[in-house]
Amino acid sequence: MPRYALMVEYDGGPFAGWQRQADQPSVQGAIEAALAKLEPGPHTIAAAGRTDSGVHARGQVAHTDLAKDWQPFRLQEALNYHLKPAPVAIRRAARVGDEFHARFSAGERRYLYRVLNRRARAVLEAGQVWQVQKSLDLSAMREGAALLLGKHDFTTFRSTMCQAKSPVKTLDAFEVDEIETEAGREIRFRLRARSFLHNQVRSFVGTLERVGAGAWRPEDVRRALEARDRAACGPVAPPQGLYLMGVGYPEDPFV
Amino acid sequence: MPRYALMVEYDGGPFAGWQRQADQPSVQGAIEAALAKLEPGPHTIAAAGRTDSGVHARGQVAHTDLAKDWQPFRLQEALNYHLKPAPVAIRRAARVGDEFHARFSAGERRYLYRVLNRRARAVLEAGQVWQVQKSLDLSAMREGAALLLGKHDFTTFRSTMCQAKSPVKTLDAFEVDEIETEAGREIRFRLRARSFLHNQVRSFVGTLERVGAGAWRPEDVRRALEARDRAACGPVAPPQGLYLMGVGYPEDPFV
Repeated sequence: MPRYALMVEYDGGPFAGWQRQADQPSVQGAIEAALAKLEPGPHTIAAAGRTDSGVHARGQVAHTDLAKDWQPFRLQEALNYHLKPAPVAIRRAARVGDEFHARFSAGERRYLYRVLNRRARAVLEAGQVWQVQKSLDLSAMREGAALLLGKHDFTTFRSTMCQAKSPVKTLDAFEVDEIETEAGREIRFRLRARSFLHNQVRSFVGTLERVGAGAWRPEDVRRALEARDRAACGPVAPPQGLYLMGVGYPEDPFV
Repeated sequence: MPRYALMVEYDGGPFAGWQRQADQPSVQGAIEAALAKLEPGPHTIAAAGRTDSGVHARGQVAHTDLAKDWQPFRLQEALNYHLKPAPVAIRRAARVGDEFHARFSAGERRYLYRVLNRRARAVLEAGQVWQVQKSLDLSAMREGAALLLGKHDFTTFRSTMCQAKSPVKTLDAFEVDEIETEAGREIRFRLRARSFLHNQVRSFVGTLERVGAGAWRPEDVRRALEARDRAACGPVAPPQGLYLMGVGYPEDPFV
């Protein structure tokens, strides 16, 4: 059976998360239902990152096996047709070899976390950012973020539900920038790693927000990290600011 | 009674437009209801631009008279509290003189129109852009836009419902740019004029989309303009891509 890689964008708001659930809407369930309109099911797709409820994606990657030899663009168009009106879109589809696995072949995940840092309630950005009213100190947050780079035991920043075998991960990039948008000041956290622990990005951002607000000093981030204790983490940032932006593979299936 | 200027942001999606209506939700109605929570009403506010149903604002300006001498930031905070959960936010409030009128003192209006130019359906941008699937020719649209600059009889580009006394207006700026966003290619039309006719921006953009798609030549825009005939206009672009970005006054009330 030919295998296809799909690049998927979604608004996580109405979903219980990526993963299929018996009684709640999921992104996986929506795509599998669309696949079943093309070829008799059941279909089971695998994704690079199983995002939580409310978390968005611009470049999630999933793969699926189909009986028919689909021209990739036709497959994309047909899936998008059947996905309506769910807020899920297939941005790209590509034929890949049988050795390709969306999750296990991935060598890199990229996340973006958006904080709208203004006093007035988010309106046009509602559900797509974490709104923080108090002005955040960018350089303090950058100092804190830099302490998290590299290979560490990230037990402090992983959910107690995390199923990863090891809490040791290598964080390759953690950029913190501010931009002036039409809605006002936005802080953008961009992270890159081979893989992440459950709630790792939201735990980082929630902790750095405390630093930006002046409640923590940047060096408190190091102390939290070195504690290797979930209780040492700051509050976990809410899901609606988080975006899975892209997934890297040894060979990009979409070029 | 002290007078206040308000800078207002809203998601036009759930509203029948700016203007108060007896039986439908309006932005004006939402703000007037919030004012009535602060001081016994009825309150009547005036705005710089009476946006249509579905049209958004980042910087609409309205004014209101109140009995109490409110500290502007307290007024902004109180209004935002009472506006919840309507997708309307007061971004700024300022004390202004009695001669200030949000509509009649305005010397400039600035609009943005967003087109998401990609094949896959808009997901995270749904309701905030006009999605055009066919790739648009930027330079052809720029050529067409340039023909609309300056002082003209814009009868072709005004709604038959337009109540302006004269169809002659001066368009001071009409920039067409493309940017690569996280959702893909976006075309941004930015317009500036002392005032606009009803549906003028959406009539311009709908016409230029025809040019960008290759159905019209740029010089057909001149022919349409010179026809001074509503029937010569291209299709009117949908409301959800349009944003009232800001209003200019001889003296900026918000500095």
